[in-house]
Amino acid sequence: MRILGIDPGLETTGYGVIAIEGDRAVHVRHGVIRTRPAAARAARLVALRDGLLAVARESGAAAAAVEAGFVGQNVRSALLLGEARAAAILALADAGLEVAEYAPALVKQTVAGFGRGEKAQVARMVAFQLGLAAPPAPEDAADALAVAITHWAHGRLAGLPRSLA
Amino acid sequence: MRILGIDPGLETTGYGVIAIEGDRAVHVRHGVIRTRPAAARAARLVALRDGLLAVARESGAAAAAVEAGFVGQNVRSALLLGEARAAAILALADAGLEVAEYAPALVKQTVAGFGRGEKAQVARMVAFQLGLAAPPAPEDAADALAVAITHWAHGRLAGLPRSLA
Repeated sequence: MRILGIDPGLETTGYGVIAIEGDRAVHVRHGVIRTRPAAARAARLVALRDGLLAVARESGAAAAAVEAGFVGQNVRSALLLGEARAAAILALADAGLEVAEYAPALVKQTVAGFGRGEKAQVARMVAFQLGLAAPPAPEDAADALAVAITHWAHGRLAGLPRSLA
Repeated sequence: MRILGIDPGLETTGYGVIAIEGDRAVHVRHGVIRTRPAAARAARLVALRDGLLAVARESGAAAAAVEAGFVGQNVRSALLLGEARAAAILALADAGLEVAEYAPALVKQTVAGFGRGEKAQVARMVAFQLGLAAPPAPEDAADALAVAITHWAHGRLAGLPRSLA
């Protein structure tokens, strides 16, 4: 089974696909979708939605997970992240995928344990868990792979809950 | 020409359609789309998007405007509003409409002047401007009509700018 993980953002959205083979997860692909800051808001949301819809359809994924929640106090940043999240969720729904959500703290804890969970540490642990020679880049794609790993791990532990957000 | 105004919200999204006849705006219809709080996030966003897409297609509108921005300091509320806004913007884009955005303060100022701009005052001024016997209800629908009036007013003043958000 393949799992598609998404780390949404209006400027850069990371995606990562893993495949579950027996009791381990292997890397399939990862990347980012960027939207032009100079473009109108509607055009950026359409580009993000359409780009992720294509990724979802090509991925062969049977499940999808999105990083939920927001770390910070900036209301404007939260508003923009919400817009990007909705574009991602609608793309996954349009691709016929159920969408699980995981809080950022849970994703970090799942792949990197109870350490500091810094960005670079998450990417190193994703590489370790998927048997990659080097940390996946850019960071948004590494985070997306971490979201996919989180969905796999929590499915193993708890029988694939719909949402742990 | 008809203008569709939207006041987005995850729980309740207001919409309002006005028609420009010569130098005045007349009321066509208004209403709200509600989503079930108990439903999954993805299902709510799909319901909102699909509902507004149907409204947009049936409205005969040639232009659309959405209330932008967020009044408040609650990061979680901003995140949810961002999600609803994106679902609305994507529905309008999917209906082939250009989407203008207006800040809440500008909408209130346009329909209710420099007064306090309370919700009830906005609804009364919308009724006055559109020649309605009573303030339109619920408030989210009245606000959506105010957004449509704002798009009309600023188009008259400034040659239909794309965005004044």
